[in-house]
Amino acid sequence: MLSKNKIKLIQSLNRKKERDESGLFLAEGNKMVEEALRSDYKIETLVSTTLFAAQHPEIQTKANEFIEADRESIQKASLLQNPQEALAIVWQPILTKPELNLSTELYLALDFIQDPGNLGTILRIADWFGINTVICSENTVDVYNPKVVQASMGAIFRIKTGYTDLESFLSEASNSQVPVYGTFMDGSNIYKEELTRNGIIVLGNEGNGISDSVSQLVTKKITIPTFSINTNKSESLNVAIAASICCSEFRRR
Amino acid sequence: MLSKNKIKLIQSLNRKKERDESGLFLAEGNKMVEEALRSDYKIETLVSTTLFAAQHPEIQTKANEFIEADRESIQKASLLQNPQEALAIVWQPILTKPELNLSTELYLALDFIQDPGNLGTILRIADWFGINTVICSENTVDVYNPKVVQASMGAIFRIKTGYTDLESFLSEASNSQVPVYGTFMDGSNIYKEELTRNGIIVLGNEGNGISDSVSQLVTKKITIPTFSINTNKSESLNVAIAASICCSEFRRR
Repeated sequence: MLSKNKIKLIQSLNRKKERDESGLFLAEGNKMVEEALRSDYKIETLVSTTLFAAQHPEIQTKANEFIEADRESIQKASLLQNPQEALAIVWQPILTKPELNLSTELYLALDFIQDPGNLGTILRIADWFGINTVICSENTVDVYNPKVVQASMGAIFRIKTGYTDLESFLSEASNSQVPVYGTFMDGSNIYKEELTRNGIIVLGNEGNGISDSVSQLVTKKITIPTFSINTNKSESLNVAIAASICCSEFRRR
Repeated sequence: MLSKNKIKLIQSLNRKKERDESGLFLAEGNKMVEEALRSDYKIETLVSTTLFAAQHPEIQTKANEFIEADRESIQKASLLQNPQEALAIVWQPILTKPELNLSTELYLALDFIQDPGNLGTILRIADWFGINTVICSENTVDVYNPKVVQASMGAIFRIKTGYTDLESFLSEASNSQVPVYGTFMDGSNIYKEELTRNGIIVLGNEGNGISDSVSQLVTKKITIPTFSINTNKSESLNVAIAASICCSEFRRR
Protein backbone atom coordinates (compact mmCIF):
# COMPACT_ATOMS: atom_id res chain seq x y z
CA MET A 1 0.00 0.00 0.00
CA LEU A 2 1.09 3.53 -0.74
CA SER A 3 1.52 5.46 2.51
CA LYS A 4 0.78 9.17 2.72
CA ASN A 5 4.47 9.81 3.25
CA LYS A 6 5.38 7.93 0.10
CA ILE A 7 2.84 9.87 -1.92
CA LYS A 8 4.32 13.05 -0.49
CA LEU A 9 7.82 11.96 -1.47
CA ILE A 10 6.69 11.10 -5.00
CA GLN A 11 5.02 14.44 -5.49
CA SER A 12 7.95 16.33 -4.00
CA LEU A 13 10.08 15.06 -6.90
CA ASN A 14 8.26 17.51 -9.12
CA ARG A 15 10.41 20.21 -7.50
CA LYS A 16 14.10 20.69 -8.31
CA LYS A 17 15.05 21.55 -4.74
CA GLU A 18 13.70 18.25 -3.46
CA ARG A 19 15.29 16.30 -6.31
CA ASP A 20 18.66 17.90 -5.62
CA GLU A 21 18.45 17.25 -1.89
CA SER A 22 17.30 13.66 -2.18
CA GLY A 23 19.27 12.71 -5.28
CA LEU A 24 16.15 10.99 -6.61
CA PHE A 25 13.91 11.45 -9.62
CA LEU A 26 10.65 10.07 -10.90
CA ALA A 27 9.94 7.81 -13.88
CA GLU A 28 6.23 7.36 -14.56
CA GLY A 29 4.17 5.10 -16.76
CA ASN A 30 4.68 1.53 -17.93
CA LYS A 31 7.09 2.32 -20.74
CA MET A 32 9.32 4.59 -18.69
CA VAL A 33 9.43 2.11 -15.79
CA GLU A 34 10.34 -0.66 -18.22
CA GLU A 35 13.15 1.51 -19.53
CA ALA A 36 14.34 2.11 -15.96
CA LEU A 37 14.28 -1.64 -15.31
CA ARG A 38 16.35 -2.31 -18.43
CA SER A 39 18.88 0.40 -17.54
CA ASP A 40 21.67 0.23 -14.97
CA TYR A 41 20.09 3.04 -12.96
CA LYS A 42 19.40 2.17 -9.32
CA ILE A 43 15.70 2.02 -8.50
CA GLU A 44 14.88 2.98 -4.93
CA THR A 45 11.13 2.32 -5.00
CA LEU A 46 8.95 0.75 -7.61
CA VAL A 47 5.19 1.13 -7.29
CA SER A 48 3.00 -0.98 -9.54
CA THR A 49 -0.16 -2.99 -9.92
CA THR A 50 -0.10 -6.73 -9.26
CA LEU A 51 -0.39 -7.36 -12.98
CA PHE A 52 2.56 -5.18 -13.95
CA ALA A 53 4.68 -6.80 -11.22
CA ALA A 54 3.79 -10.27 -12.45
CA GLN A 55 4.84 -9.30 -15.97
CA HIS A 56 8.16 -7.92 -14.73
CA PRO A 57 9.77 -10.43 -12.34
CA GLU A 58 13.07 -8.49 -12.56
CA ILE A 59 11.51 -5.97 -10.15
CA GLN A 60 12.47 -8.30 -7.30
CA THR A 61 16.18 -7.89 -7.93
CA LYS A 62 16.27 -4.42 -9.51
CA ALA A 63 14.19 -2.39 -7.05
CA ASN A 64 15.31 -1.74 -3.52
CA GLU A 65 11.68 -1.53 -2.40
CA PHE A 66 8.54 -2.73 -4.12
CA ILE A 67 5.07 -1.43 -3.30
CA GLU A 68 1.98 -3.00 -4.74
CA ALA A 69 -0.80 -0.51 -5.39
CA ASP A 70 -3.98 -0.33 -7.41
CA ARG A 71 -4.40 2.08 -10.28
CA GLU A 72 -6.40 4.44 -8.13
CA SER A 73 -3.61 4.90 -5.60
CA ILE A 74 -1.07 5.32 -8.38
CA GLN A 75 -3.34 7.95 -9.89
CA LYS A 76 -3.36 9.74 -6.54
CA ALA A 77 0.40 9.85 -6.31
CA SER A 78 1.16 10.52 -9.95
CA LEU A 79 2.02 13.81 -11.60
CA LEU A 80 0.67 12.54 -14.91
CA GLN A 81 -2.85 13.23 -16.13
CA ASN A 82 -3.26 9.64 -17.27
CA PRO A 83 -1.02 7.56 -15.06
CA GLN A 84 -0.71 3.90 -15.90
CA GLU A 85 0.23 0.87 -13.86
CA ALA A 86 3.68 1.74 -12.58
CA LEU A 87 6.02 4.43 -11.38
CA ALA A 88 9.55 4.31 -10.10
CA ILE A 89 11.66 6.48 -7.80
CA VAL A 90 15.12 6.31 -9.31
CA TRP A 91 18.54 7.44 -8.06
CA GLN A 92 20.18 10.11 -10.14
CA PRO A 93 23.49 8.69 -11.35
CA ILE A 94 26.54 10.13 -9.64
CA LEU A 95 27.98 12.56 -12.12
CA THR A 96 31.64 12.17 -12.70
CA LYS A 97 33.26 14.48 -15.19
CA PRO A 98 32.25 12.73 -18.39
CA GLU A 99 35.08 11.35 -20.48
CA LEU A 100 34.81 13.22 -23.71
CA ASN A 101 36.61 12.36 -26.90
CA LEU A 102 36.28 15.72 -28.52
CA SER A 103 38.72 14.86 -31.27
CA THR A 104 36.67 11.94 -32.53
CA GLU A 105 33.08 12.20 -31.26
CA LEU A 106 30.10 14.49 -31.84
CA TYR A 107 28.35 16.21 -28.92
CA LEU A 108 25.38 18.48 -28.34
CA ALA A 109 25.72 21.50 -26.04
CA LEU A 110 22.60 23.27 -24.80
CA ASP A 111 22.67 26.99 -24.10
CA PHE A 112 19.76 27.84 -21.78
CA ILE A 113 17.10 25.42 -23.01
CA GLN A 114 14.07 26.26 -20.88
CA ASP A 115 11.28 24.00 -21.99
CA PRO A 116 11.30 20.51 -20.44
CA GLY A 117 9.55 19.04 -23.48
CA ASN A 118 12.27 20.38 -25.75
CA LEU A 119 15.06 18.99 -23.55
CA GLY A 120 13.42 15.57 -23.41
CA THR A 121 12.92 15.56 -27.18
CA ILE A 122 16.55 16.58 -27.73
CA LEU A 123 17.70 13.63 -25.57
CA ARG A 124 15.54 11.33 -27.69
CA ILE A 125 17.08 12.75 -30.86
CA ALA A 126 20.61 12.37 -29.45
CA ASP A 127 19.79 8.76 -28.62
CA TRP A 128 18.53 8.09 -32.14
CA PHE A 129 21.55 9.62 -33.80
CA GLY A 130 24.09 7.90 -31.58
CA ILE A 131 25.23 11.00 -29.70
CA ASN A 132 25.98 9.65 -26.26
CA THR A 133 26.57 12.81 -24.22
CA VAL A 134 24.67 16.09 -24.01
CA ILE A 135 26.33 19.03 -22.24
CA CYS A 136 23.99 21.55 -20.61
CA SER A 137 24.61 25.14 -19.54
CA GLU A 138 23.91 25.71 -15.87
CA ASN A 139 20.71 27.63 -16.68
CA THR A 140 19.26 24.83 -18.81
CA VAL A 141 16.18 23.14 -17.32
CA ASP A 142 16.91 20.22 -14.98
CA VAL A 143 17.23 16.95 -16.84
CA TYR A 144 15.45 15.12 -13.98
CA ASN A 145 12.36 17.32 -14.23
CA PRO A 146 9.51 14.77 -14.64
CA LYS A 147 8.43 16.40 -17.92
CA VAL A 148 11.93 15.98 -19.35
CA VAL A 149 12.03 12.34 -18.25
CA GLN A 150 8.64 11.76 -19.87
CA ALA A 151 9.43 13.52 -23.15
CA SER A 152 12.73 11.64 -23.46
CA MET A 153 10.76 8.40 -23.88
CA GLY A 154 13.52 6.51 -22.05
CA ALA A 155 16.50 8.22 -23.68
CA ILE A 156 17.26 9.71 -20.27
CA PHE A 157 18.48 6.27 -19.20
CA ARG A 158 20.90 6.01 -22.12
CA ILE A 159 22.30 9.49 -22.70
CA LYS A 160 24.95 10.97 -20.41
CA THR A 161 24.28 14.55 -19.38
CA GLY A 162 26.26 17.08 -17.41
CA TYR A 163 25.76 20.70 -16.34
CA THR A 164 28.71 22.99 -16.69
CA ASP A 165 29.87 26.54 -17.32
CA LEU A 166 29.28 26.40 -21.06
CA GLU A 167 31.59 29.29 -21.88
CA SER A 168 34.64 27.74 -20.17
CA PHE A 169 33.84 24.38 -21.71
CA LEU A 170 33.53 25.77 -25.23
CA SER A 171 36.55 28.02 -25.00
CA GLU A 172 38.67 25.08 -23.87
CA ALA A 173 37.29 23.04 -26.75
CA SER A 174 37.91 25.65 -29.40
CA ASN A 175 41.41 26.24 -28.00
CA SER A 176 42.05 22.57 -28.77
CA GLN A 177 40.85 23.08 -32.35
CA VAL A 178 37.58 21.23 -31.77
CA PRO A 179 34.99 22.62 -34.19
CA VAL A 180 32.12 24.36 -32.42
CA TYR A 181 28.97 24.59 -34.59
CA GLY A 182 25.96 26.75 -33.90
CA THR A 183 22.86 27.68 -35.88
CA PHE A 184 22.36 31.36 -36.76
CA MET A 185 20.19 33.23 -39.23
CA ASP A 186 23.31 34.35 -41.10
CA GLY A 187 25.32 31.12 -40.94
CA SER A 188 26.40 29.15 -43.97
CA ASN A 189 23.96 26.69 -45.53
CA ILE A 190 24.14 23.42 -43.56
CA TYR A 191 23.35 21.41 -46.70
CA LYS A 192 26.43 22.76 -48.49
CA GLU A 193 28.83 23.20 -45.60
CA GLU A 194 31.52 20.62 -44.97
CA LEU A 195 30.71 19.01 -41.63
CA THR A 196 33.33 17.26 -39.52
CA ARG A 197 32.84 13.89 -37.86
CA ASN A 198 33.70 15.30 -34.47
CA GLY A 199 32.78 18.50 -32.71
CA ILE A 200 30.13 20.23 -30.68
CA ILE A 201 26.75 21.44 -31.95
CA VAL A 202 25.44 24.29 -29.78
CA LEU A 203 21.65 24.71 -29.52
CA GLY A 204 20.30 27.98 -28.20
CA ASN A 205 17.41 29.25 -26.12
CA GLU A 206 13.85 28.94 -27.45
CA GLY A 207 13.18 32.65 -27.60
CA ASN A 208 16.59 34.22 -28.00
CA GLY A 209 18.80 31.66 -29.68
CA ILE A 210 22.45 31.29 -28.73
CA SER A 211 23.56 33.89 -26.17
CA ASP A 212 26.07 36.56 -27.15
CA SER A 213 28.88 35.24 -25.01
CA VAL A 214 28.45 31.70 -26.36
CA SER A 215 28.10 33.01 -29.94
CA GLN A 216 31.66 34.31 -29.76
CA LEU A 217 32.91 30.80 -29.09
CA VAL A 218 31.14 29.26 -32.08
CA THR A 219 33.74 28.65 -34.76
CA LYS A 220 31.37 27.45 -37.50
CA LYS A 221 28.11 29.31 -37.94
CA ILE A 222 25.55 27.31 -39.87
CA THR A 223 21.97 27.87 -40.91
CA ILE A 224 19.06 25.66 -41.92
CA PRO A 225 17.71 27.53 -44.94
CA THR A 226 13.98 28.02 -45.36
CA PHE A 227 12.31 26.89 -48.57
CA SER A 228 9.27 29.06 -48.05
CA ILE A 229 8.39 31.58 -50.71
CA ASN A 230 5.90 33.40 -48.48
CA THR A 231 6.80 37.02 -47.96
CA ASN A 232 5.55 36.72 -44.40
CA LYS A 233 7.48 33.66 -43.33
CA SER A 234 8.43 31.90 -40.10
CA GLU A 235 11.41 33.38 -38.35
CA SER A 236 12.69 30.20 -36.85
CA LEU A 237 12.31 26.50 -36.28
CA ASN A 238 11.65 24.99 -32.87
CA VAL A 239 14.99 24.14 -31.21
CA ALA A 240 14.31 20.39 -31.13
CA ILE A 241 13.44 20.47 -34.84
CA ALA A 242 16.67 22.35 -35.57
CA ALA A 243 18.55 19.78 -33.46
CA SER A 244 17.08 16.90 -35.44
CA ILE A 245 17.98 18.41 -38.79
CA CYS A 246 21.54 19.16 -37.62
CA CYS A 247 21.99 15.62 -36.27
CA SER A 248 20.55 14.15 -39.45
CA GLU A 249 22.95 16.20 -41.61
CA PHE A 250 26.02 15.37 -39.51
CA ARG A 251 25.22 11.67 -39.41
CA ARG A 252 24.03 10.89 -42.91
CA ARG A 253 27.32 11.82 -44.59
CA MET B 1 -14.29 46.32 -21.34
CA LEU B 2 -14.61 42.57 -21.60
CA SER B 3 -18.17 41.50 -20.87
CA LYS B 4 -18.95 38.21 -19.18
CA ASN B 5 -20.53 37.00 -22.37
CA LYS B 6 -17.40 37.76 -24.37
CA ILE B 7 -15.25 35.91 -21.84
CA LYS B 8 -17.63 32.99 -22.12
CA LEU B 9 -17.37 33.03 -25.91
CA ILE B 10 -13.57 33.16 -25.78
CA GLN B 11 -13.37 30.24 -23.42
CA SER B 12 -15.91 28.23 -25.37
CA LEU B 13 -13.48 28.22 -28.30
CA ASN B 14 -11.39 25.71 -26.39
CA ARG B 15 -14.04 23.14 -27.41
CA LYS B 16 -14.29 21.70 -30.91
CA LYS B 17 -18.10 21.64 -30.87
CA GLU B 18 -18.29 25.38 -30.21
CA ARG B 19 -15.61 26.13 -32.79
CA ASP B 20 -17.45 24.08 -35.40
CA GLU B 21 -20.77 25.73 -34.63
CA SER B 22 -19.48 29.28 -34.55
CA GLY B 23 -16.86 28.94 -37.29
CA LEU B 24 -14.44 30.87 -35.06
CA PHE B 25 -11.13 30.12 -33.40
CA LEU B 26 -8.79 31.77 -30.94
CA ALA B 27 -5.33 33.26 -31.45
CA GLU B 28 -3.66 34.27 -28.22
CA GLY B 29 -0.59 36.25 -27.29
CA ASN B 30 1.12 39.20 -28.96
CA LYS B 31 3.02 37.23 -31.57
CA MET B 32 0.02 35.18 -32.67
CA VAL B 33 -2.23 38.22 -32.86
CA GLU B 34 0.41 40.01 -34.93
CA GLU B 35 0.48 37.02 -37.29
CA ALA B 36 -3.32 37.16 -37.53
CA LEU B 37 -3.15 40.88 -38.35
CA ARG B 38 -0.58 40.25 -41.07
CA SER B 39 -2.63 37.42 -42.58
CA ASP B 40 -5.72 37.67 -44.73
CA TYR B 41 -7.82 35.87 -42.12
CA LYS B 42 -10.89 37.79 -40.98
CA ILE B 43 -10.70 38.92 -37.37
CA GLU B 44 -14.05 39.14 -35.62
CA THR B 45 -12.91 40.52 -32.28
CA LEU B 46 -9.55 41.77 -31.13
CA VAL B 47 -8.98 42.27 -27.43
CA SER B 48 -5.86 44.11 -26.35
CA THR B 49 -4.27 46.56 -23.97
CA THR B 50 -4.13 50.24 -24.89
CA LEU B 51 -0.40 49.93 -25.52
CA PHE B 52 -0.72 47.00 -27.93
CA ALA B 53 -3.49 48.80 -29.80
CA ALA B 54 -1.37 51.94 -30.11
CA GLN B 55 1.47 49.90 -31.56
CA HIS B 56 -0.85 48.22 -34.08
CA PRO B 57 -3.00 50.88 -35.79
CA GLU B 58 -4.03 48.33 -38.45
CA ILE B 59 -6.40 46.89 -35.82
CA GLN B 60 -8.88 49.63 -36.79
CA THR B 61 -9.32 48.32 -40.30
CA LYS B 62 -8.57 44.64 -39.78
CA ALA B 63 -10.78 43.79 -36.80
CA ASN B 64 -14.54 43.87 -36.98
CA GLU B 65 -14.72 44.71 -33.29
CA PHE B 66 -12.03 46.05 -30.97
CA ILE B 67 -12.18 45.75 -27.20
CA GLU B 68 -9.70 47.48 -24.99
CA ALA B 69 -8.90 45.55 -21.82
CA ASP B 70 -6.21 45.50 -19.17
CA ARG B 71 -3.88 42.54 -18.71
CA GLU B 72 -5.90 41.31 -15.78
CA SER B 73 -9.10 40.98 -17.80
CA ILE B 74 -7.19 39.32 -20.64
CA GLN B 75 -5.73 36.90 -18.10
CA LYS B 76 -9.26 36.11 -16.95
CA ALA B 77 -10.48 35.28 -20.44
CA SER B 78 -7.36 33.54 -21.69
CA LEU B 79 -6.72 29.83 -21.96
CA LEU B 80 -2.96 30.42 -21.67
CA GLN B 81 -1.05 30.21 -18.42
CA ASN B 82 0.86 33.37 -19.21
CA PRO B 83 -1.36 35.47 -21.42
CA GLN B 84 0.10 38.63 -22.84
CA GLU B 85 -1.45 41.83 -24.13
CA ALA B 86 -3.71 40.61 -26.88
CA LEU B 87 -5.99 37.91 -28.15
CA ALA B 88 -8.09 37.61 -31.26
CA ILE B 89 -11.24 35.75 -32.22
CA VAL B 90 -10.66 34.77 -35.83
CA TRP B 91 -12.95 33.35 -38.53
CA GLN B 92 -11.97 29.95 -39.80
CA PRO B 93 -11.37 30.27 -43.52
CA ILE B 94 -14.06 28.74 -45.70
CA LEU B 95 -12.60 25.52 -46.93
CA THR B 96 -12.90 25.00 -50.60
CA LYS B 97 -11.46 21.83 -52.02
CA PRO B 98 -7.80 22.83 -52.14
CA GLU B 99 -6.26 22.99 -55.57
CA LEU B 100 -3.55 20.41 -55.47
CA ASN B 101 -0.81 20.03 -58.04
CA LEU B 102 0.11 16.51 -57.18
CA SER B 103 2.25 16.09 -60.26
CA THR B 104 4.59 18.94 -59.32
CA GLU B 105 4.25 19.75 -55.62
CA LEU B 106 5.08 18.07 -52.32
CA TYR B 107 2.41 17.56 -49.63
CA LEU B 108 2.16 16.19 -46.12
CA ALA B 109 -0.72 13.87 -45.19
CA LEU B 110 -1.45 13.18 -41.53
CA ASP B 111 -2.90 9.85 -40.49
CA PHE B 112 -4.52 10.27 -37.06
CA ILE B 113 -2.17 12.77 -35.42
CA GLN B 114 -3.59 13.14 -31.91
CA ASP B 115 -1.35 15.58 -30.08
CA PRO B 116 -2.09 19.28 -30.72
CA GLY B 117 1.54 20.21 -30.05
CA ASN B 118 2.68 17.79 -32.74
CA LEU B 119 0.18 19.10 -35.29
CA GLY B 120 1.19 22.71 -34.59
CA THR B 121 4.88 21.83 -34.89
CA ILE B 122 4.25 19.97 -38.16
CA LEU B 123 2.52 23.08 -39.59
CA ARG B 124 5.55 25.13 -38.56
CA ILE B 125 7.86 22.63 -40.28
CA ALA B 126 5.71 22.64 -43.44
CA ASP B 127 5.87 26.43 -43.46
CA TRP B 128 9.67 26.41 -43.13
CA PHE B 129 10.14 23.90 -45.90
CA GLY B 130 7.75 25.57 -48.31
CA ILE B 131 5.04 22.92 -48.20
CA ASN B 132 1.87 24.95 -48.56
CA THR B 133 -0.85 22.37 -47.91
CA VAL B 134 -1.25 19.72 -45.21
CA ILE B 135 -3.95 17.09 -45.65
CA CYS B 136 -5.42 15.62 -42.46
CA SER B 137 -7.31 12.39 -41.90
CA GLU B 138 -10.71 12.96 -40.36
CA ASN B 139 -9.54 11.59 -36.99
CA THR B 140 -6.57 13.97 -36.78
CA VAL B 141 -6.84 16.59 -34.02
CA ASP B 142 -8.63 19.81 -35.02
CA VAL B 143 -6.29 22.36 -36.53
CA TYR B 144 -8.16 25.19 -34.77
CA ASN B 145 -7.58 23.69 -31.33
CA PRO B 146 -5.94 26.57 -29.39
CA LYS B 147 -2.89 24.40 -28.59
CA VAL B 148 -2.36 23.69 -32.29
CA VAL B 149 -2.67 27.38 -33.12
CA GLN B 150 -0.15 28.21 -30.39
CA ALA B 151 2.39 25.53 -31.33
CA SER B 152 2.21 26.53 -35.00
CA MET B 153 3.77 29.90 -34.10
CA GLY B 154 1.73 31.57 -36.80
CA ALA B 155 2.17 28.92 -39.49
CA ILE B 156 -1.57 28.26 -39.14
CA PHE B 157 -2.16 31.53 -41.00
CA ARG B 158 0.02 30.50 -43.92
CA ILE B 159 -0.51 26.79 -44.43
CA LYS B 160 -3.65 25.45 -46.09
CA THR B 161 -5.20 22.49 -44.34
CA GLY B 162 -8.07 20.19 -45.12
CA TYR B 163 -9.73 17.18 -43.51
CA THR B 164 -10.62 14.31 -45.76
CA ASP B 165 -11.05 10.57 -46.04
CA LEU B 166 -7.35 9.84 -46.27
CA GLU B 167 -7.77 6.43 -47.85
CA SER B 168 -9.84 7.70 -50.79
CA PHE B 169 -7.49 10.62 -51.23
CA LEU B 170 -4.38 8.45 -51.28
CA SER B 171 -5.84 5.78 -53.49
CA GLU B 172 -6.84 8.40 -56.04
CA ALA B 173 -3.34 9.87 -55.84
CA SER B 174 -1.55 6.58 -56.29
CA ASN B 175 -3.89 5.67 -59.16
CA SER B 176 -2.58 8.80 -60.88
CA GLN B 177 1.02 7.60 -60.32
CA VAL B 178 1.69 10.17 -57.60
CA PRO B 179 4.37 8.77 -55.28
CA VAL B 180 3.07 8.20 -51.74
CA TYR B 181 5.87 8.06 -49.16
CA GLY B 182 5.56 6.82 -45.60
CA THR B 183 8.03 6.07 -42.82
CA PHE B 184 8.23 2.48 -41.59
CA MET B 185 10.73 0.50 -39.54
CA ASP B 186 11.46 -1.67 -42.57
CA GLY B 187 11.47 0.99 -45.28
CA SER B 188 14.45 1.84 -47.42
CA ASN B 189 17.07 4.24 -46.07
CA ILE B 190 15.84 7.81 -46.69
CA TYR B 191 19.41 9.04 -47.10
CA LYS B 192 20.03 6.67 -50.00
CA GLU B 193 16.60 6.52 -51.58
CA GLU B 194 15.84 8.56 -54.66
CA LEU B 195 13.23 11.12 -53.67
CA THR B 196 10.94 12.77 -56.17
CA ARG B 197 10.18 16.48 -56.24
CA ASN B 198 6.47 15.86 -56.03
CA GLY B 199 4.39 13.50 -53.98
CA ILE B 200 2.80 12.95 -50.60
CA ILE B 201 4.61 12.17 -47.35
CA VAL B 202 2.31 10.33 -44.94
CA LEU B 203 2.95 10.77 -41.21
CA GLY B 204 1.38 8.31 -38.80
CA ASN B 205 -0.12 8.28 -35.34
CA GLU B 206 2.12 8.97 -32.33
CA GLY B 207 1.68 5.56 -30.74
CA ASN B 208 0.86 3.28 -33.62
CA GLY B 209 2.40 4.79 -36.71
CA ILE B 210 0.64 4.63 -40.06
CA SER B 211 -2.60 2.63 -39.93
CA ASP B 212 -2.87 -0.68 -41.79
CA SER B 213 -5.35 0.56 -44.35
CA VAL B 214 -3.24 3.62 -45.16
CA SER B 215 -0.03 1.52 -45.21
CA GLN B 216 -1.39 -0.38 -48.18
CA LEU B 217 -1.62 2.85 -50.15
CA VAL B 218 1.99 3.87 -49.48
CA THR B 219 3.98 3.19 -52.62
CA LYS B 220 7.44 4.10 -51.25
CA LYS B 221 8.30 2.90 -47.77
CA ILE B 222 11.18 4.82 -46.28
CA THR B 223 12.96 4.75 -42.95
CA ILE B 224 15.12 7.17 -40.98
CA PRO B 225 17.93 4.89 -39.83
CA THR B 226 19.19 5.09 -36.24
CA PHE B 227 22.89 5.66 -35.61
CA SER B 228 22.71 4.38 -32.06
CA ILE B 229 24.93 1.46 -31.08
CA ASN B 230 23.08 0.87 -27.82
CA THR B 231 21.62 -2.61 -27.60
CA ASN B 232 18.64 -1.10 -25.83
CA LYS B 233 17.77 1.69 -28.21
CA SER B 234 14.83 3.97 -28.93
CA GLU B 235 12.13 2.41 -31.01
CA SER B 236 11.05 5.55 -32.76
CA LEU B 237 11.35 9.26 -33.25
CA ASN B 238 8.61 11.70 -32.35
CA VAL B 239 6.36 12.25 -35.39
CA ALA B 240 7.23 15.95 -35.72
CA ILE B 241 10.94 15.08 -35.61
CA ALA B 242 10.43 12.45 -38.30
CA ALA B 243 8.49 15.03 -40.34
CA SER B 244 11.32 17.53 -40.10
CA ILE B 245 13.95 15.04 -41.23
CA CYS B 246 11.77 13.92 -44.16
CA CYS B 247 11.10 17.51 -45.25
CA SER B 248 14.79 18.35 -44.92
CA GLU B 249 15.78 15.36 -47.07
CA PHE B 250 13.19 16.06 -49.76
CA ARG B 251 14.05 19.74 -49.96
CA ARG B 252 17.83 19.80 -49.73
CA ARG B 253 18.39 17.82 -52.95
